[in-house]
Amino acid sequence: MRLKKIKGADEYIKESSYVVNEINFIENLHIEIGCGKGDFIINMALKYPNINFVGIEKYTSVLYKALLKIENKSIPNLKFMCIDANEIENYLSNKVDLIYLNFSDPWPKNRHYKRRLTSHDFLEKYEKLFKNDIVIYQKTDNRLLFEFSLESFSTKGYTLKNISCDLHNSDFDNIKTEYEEKFSKKGFVIYRVEAYKNK
Amino acid sequence: MRLKKIKGADEYIKESSYVVNEINFIENLHIEIGCGKGDFIINMALKYPNINFVGIEKYTSVLYKALLKIENKSIPNLKFMCIDANEIENYLSNKVDLIYLNFSDPWPKNRHYKRRLTSHDFLEKYEKLFKNDIVIYQKTDNRLLFEFSLESFSTKGYTLKNISCDLHNSDFDNIKTEYEEKFSKKGFVIYRVEAYKNK
Repeated sequence: MRLKKIKGADEYIKESSYVVNEINFIENLHIEIGCGKGDFIINMALKYPNINFVGIEKYTSVLYKALLKIENKSIPNLKFMCIDANEIENYLSNKVDLIYLNFSDPWPKNRHYKRRLTSHDFLEKYEKLFKNDIVIYQKTDNRLLFEFSLESFSTKGYTLKNISCDLHNSDFDNIKTEYEEKFSKKGFVIYRVEAYKNK
Repeated sequence: MRLKKIKGADEYIKESSYVVNEINFIENLHIEIGCGKGDFIINMALKYPNINFVGIEKYTSVLYKALLKIENKSIPNLKFMCIDANEIENYLSNKVDLIYLNFSDPWPKNRHYKRRLTSHDFLEKYEKLFKNDIVIYQKTDNRLLFEFSLESFSTKGYTLKNISCDLHNSDFDNIKTEYEEKFSKKGFVIYRVEAYKNK
């Protein structure tokens, strides 16, 4: 993804009390890796005040847009970290209860499969983050990424539950991401799955 | 499924050398449970002469239509059994290498879930049929059956591979059933999965 740099975004992020380098939440920690412009994680935090949420986003120009949405709001159970998914184990080891992967970059070329956020390499990184059993919820509109993910989870010993191959025509409770809102209006099918593994 | 009885079908089946009560194939045995009018299993048998195929179909009026298609052909690696899937363990224990489930009845009502051919009850029956490791290939155009099946396989300890949420836009080698031919022309999406488990 190539993104336009936004002037002042880096400084804004540095000064925001929402953005941290260390997480002090000690229980019920749900994180979204690649939270984009924040609609999902912000609305989840508002809907579930007893759960703590952390949005992970590496692009300052994207995270900046999420922060603008909550500029004048106080949401005590929400924080953001401006880091790369590859570094996540340095920040969140043994702290997490649930990971959300929403509309991750599909990296469609075969030779880039290790970069997909559900590759075995990433799953191994995530497993270190969890306090107890491993729980990952994924949503995507990319069929090939979904097929890859189901197989990647399954061959890595995860049990798959609550699968939908058309989320918006299913009964699942669902808070949309900004991307999801846009693409489902264009008629794209949204896929979802929950993956579980004992630690 | 309510089916019209075809006059003479029962007698025709009784006399056909393709229809057996006992299987003498001793290796490479692939079976299709619910083979319908036979297009898939007949074409598989013609394409793979070194594999032995058995089509299982409980309705005589349906099996009759499959048999008419091969009336004047000799296909030594193909047999049919006119039995119910519930009775299958009485006929094929420890003989099978691969099961195909193609476009099985979705039994859409929740209270009928045990009747779906990928319910845990059926998977337990199938496991007794296999000589060695368990391999089940499924195709369906029914999204709810597909979602149910993925979860049923996964929670029963199966590993899922070669998943497609749109088979006809994928690269998988595929022989169509007569149902699949008809419904894919109408624009229905076809799903497929391979499920594996050690015996």
